[in-house]
Amino acid sequence: MPVGTVASVKGVPQDVLEELGIEILLGNTYHLYLRPGVEQVRRLGGLHRFMSWPRAILTDSGGFQVFSLSDLRKLTEEGVTFRSHLDGSSHFFSPETAMEAQIGLGADIIMAFDECTEYPAEPERVRESMELTLRWAERSKRYFEEHKNEVPWNNNSNCQLHTGNSEIRNSKLETRHSSEMQALFGIVQGGSDFALRKESAERTVEIGFPGYAIGGLSVGEPRHVTREIVEATIEHLPADQPRYLMGVGTPEDIVEYANLGIDMMDCVLPTRAARHGLLFTSEGRISIKQAQYAGDQNPPDPNCRCKVCSRYSRAYLRHLYAANEILAQTLNTIHNLSFYLDTMRAVRHSISLGRGARFLSEVWSQAKP
Amino acid sequence: MPVGTVASVKGVPQDVLEELGIEILLGNTYHLYLRPGVEQVRRLGGLHRFMSWPRAILTDSGGFQVFSLSDLRKLTEEGVTFRSHLDGSSHFFSPETAMEAQIGLGADIIMAFDECTEYPAEPERVRESMELTLRWAERSKRYFEEHKNEVPWNNNSNCQLHTGNSEIRNSKLETRHSSEMQALFGIVQGGSDFALRKESAERTVEIGFPGYAIGGLSVGEPRHVTREIVEATIEHLPADQPRYLMGVGTPEDIVEYANLGIDMMDCVLPTRAARHGLLFTSEGRISIKQAQYAGDQNPPDPNCRCKVCSRYSRAYLRHLYAANEILAQTLNTIHNLSFYLDTMRAVRHSISLGRGARFLSEVWSQAKP
Repeated sequence: MPVGTVASVKGVPQDVLEELGIEILLGNTYHLYLRPGVEQVRRLGGLHRFMSWPRAILTDSGGFQVFSLSDLRKLTEEGVTFRSHLDGSSHFFSPETAMEAQIGLGADIIMAFDECTEYPAEPERVRESMELTLRWAERSKRYFEEHKNEVPWNNNSNCQLHTGNSEIRNSKLETRHSSEMQALFGIVQGGSDFALRKESAERTVEIGFPGYAIGGLSVGEPRHVTREIVEATIEHLPADQPRYLMGVGTPEDIVEYANLGIDMMDCVLPTRAARHGLLFTSEGRISIKQAQYAGDQNPPDPNCRCKVCSRYSRAYLRHLYAANEILAQTLNTIHNLSFYLDTMRAVRHSISLGRGARFLSEVWSQAKP
Repeated sequence: MPVGTVASVKGVPQDVLEELGIEILLGNTYHLYLRPGVEQVRRLGGLHRFMSWPRAILTDSGGFQVFSLSDLRKLTEEGVTFRSHLDGSSHFFSPETAMEAQIGLGADIIMAFDECTEYPAEPERVRESMELTLRWAERSKRYFEEHKNEVPWNNNSNCQLHTGNSEIRNSKLETRHSSEMQALFGIVQGGSDFALRKESAERTVEIGFPGYAIGGLSVGEPRHVTREIVEATIEHLPADQPRYLMGVGTPEDIVEYANLGIDMMDCVLPTRAARHGLLFTSEGRISIKQAQYAGDQNPPDPNCRCKVCSRYSRAYLRHLYAANEILAQTLNTIHNLSFYLDTMRAVRHSISLGRGARFLSEVWSQAKP
């Protein structure tokens, strides 16, 4: 899932995202809550309609950003009081308000409000944090069950759609049925402790969700720890429900974790790296800002058939980056997303052939620069 | 002609420019000379190939930017010594070096090197400047005639095309025939003096060019002066050759000047204004950053069928602008360019119907906010 932080995958128009074959985007509740605000999005019919995106959307709970971006004021059993990174204003997130926000935004998949345990952390701290996340998971589910019919695209809800004479003309957006409901996923925590991860997984499954995420990873721990935790956790999550690994990762990572049974991943890496001139290619990573590409007429990735590689040279992309042209960000992002999607297509193909994704994993470990 | 300063119409990929129906782009020699450098572009096959743009390109002579952007060090009969606005390095432009640069860039239409007279200026200063421009026009033509076969896409030229195995796969770019030559246009100066404008026009026509530009306008003079000078100048330029008004203008302007007989115009207004949140619409100008649009579900221009107005609401564009998302710049620019192109299509249609463009001019003066 590419990350569309504030209702936009930075620099890429929605028709290009569709053309790339993107089926689901991630939106950040924390950012959307601050700007343009949940009530605004709700009144405009929800995120799909607001940003004109007819395909699936997942929103995170806001918890991760509260812990990482904002000036965190106070954490209690009830929830978190924090200051906006934009203007310093004070806000409160709890399982209930995080659900309320995500119902108002109206994504297809929403996430339970959790505490993302920092790494490293003392064993006692990890257990306490995990227990809090479990209590918050129950409260998240309870609030969601009581209010899930309040989605903006539910005709029974009390939202006011300002559909005047000139309403947005994307008929696909009108086909979202009022009978459709959001899916609330639970999140497993437990730090880097195998036993706690197992316990967190089992007790989260006990609460019962249509899908499960593994949270609290990619927070600074060594890569082998991430992998070991994923392996130790995934076996305790139902294989017939979506299993989502949050905040991962490199192309090598997504192949590896798909191979372990992970169904969904999200990461800012392909888009953020693109804006900093880092391209993922079949021949390894390329830092397009380097002078060596100034006269290079080759496409960014000779084995890629995306619209960027079909049309532009490394020399041109290097020039755009050096000249600080915003088109650099757009084109680099389109290529990286295309590369990630191609990678996932190869993974799916490999799985459908019954070979698992292991061979790809091997290809990747050789291709790494 | 949209302005693609350094080989990019800021924020808009080339396929979208094609889709919009843009037939010709303007590139700035001054900017391209500094970055990525003429020799670099020449070795990469010229601007068309470098930026993957198979349609027409016009480059200006660099004179206007030297006078307006750089730290101008010294103006002599020979040329201009100036300092780069990027790094302060010292450079020299003359009619000969400006032609050499433009031949190296390989645009379809290139411009004589002129001195853009400031406004206001003393009569004597205006005459001297005009005379200098005429002498430079002769030198520009002489150099061009002697070196015009050195374009990068001329097989007889000595440029080294690095066409390896993975050359850029846009076959349209390969169809530029070596027999095609650039067209060098002359530029009329003469400040706001009707007699000098007439004399400049006649003497420039005497030198002989396949097309003529009216320069030295849109440099701070009142709008009625611009119009009067255009009217006083155009009648002395051959009606059967392209007449190009440089640096103009608003949608109202381009209708008005087309009505006076102007065939070509260029302006940064639609693109620059877009990046600052100003949209041109059939209902007047809209500053999309205003809070009044935060909940507005209407398309930017209800009478526009561009890909932005077909898909996105004012509320979404306002959000993107307020959240500092680069997609705001891209989408606003696409709409404004579409609006300008629609305007020019209406002008052409009106001309083809034999009514001149006057009725449109009237429509415009009513629509102005």
